[in-house]
Amino acid sequence: MGKGKIAVQVGHATLTASEEAKRRHPDWWNQWFHEGQAKVVVKVDSESALRDLRREAEELGLPSALIQDSGLTQVEPGTATCVGIGPGPVELIDKITGELPLL
Amino acid sequence: MGKGKIAVQVGHATLTASEEAKRRHPDWWNQWFHEGQAKVVVKVDSESALRDLRREAEELGLPSALIQDSGLTQVEPGTATCVGIGPGPVELIDKITGELPLL
Repeated sequence: MGKGKIAVQVGHATLTASEEAKRRHPDWWNQWFHEGQAKVVVKVDSESALRDLRREAEELGLPSALIQDSGLTQVEPGTATCVGIGPGPVELIDKITGELPLL
Repeated sequence: MGKGKIAVQVGHATLTASEEAKRRHPDWWNQWFHEGQAKVVVKVDSESALRDLRREAEELGLPSALIQDSGLTQVEPGTATCVGIGPGPVELIDKITGELPLL
């Protein structure tokens, strides 16, 4: 994906995970929103790795959002392009993404 | 900026503009949120052009968010990196960004 398309996927993941966090963990969301809204974008090397991250987030009870593309450009329809995880306690999020390289 | 940093700026702009829209124009926000949450990332060639877009959005009554970087990496502190505009009526948004090239 080009950088514009990557940015759109991250925008989708940001908003969808944020809305889920607000609904399920308004305390986590409020703290994050009012303390700088830290966001870190990391990368994996396969779609199955993305789906694994999503499953791990669910197992830890973290809000998450799996973004699937409509496939009009650049990727096949239904391809998972991005996973948003959190906001939530940093020690939980780091269990999932702490070792991944920055994009 | 590298693609990871660009993606973070777009994530910030997405969320901040979304929250402003929800507060000021919940009707616009709801329609957008439930109809695919379209996002388009376009580019300008200067920081002053970004600030012009923000001013035009305000003049048209559109929700918007100017993202300024804390400057820890890649750019000077306080640099405007991204503007989020909308969600709102497409004919209003197109007046501001309709002619800009995709990122």
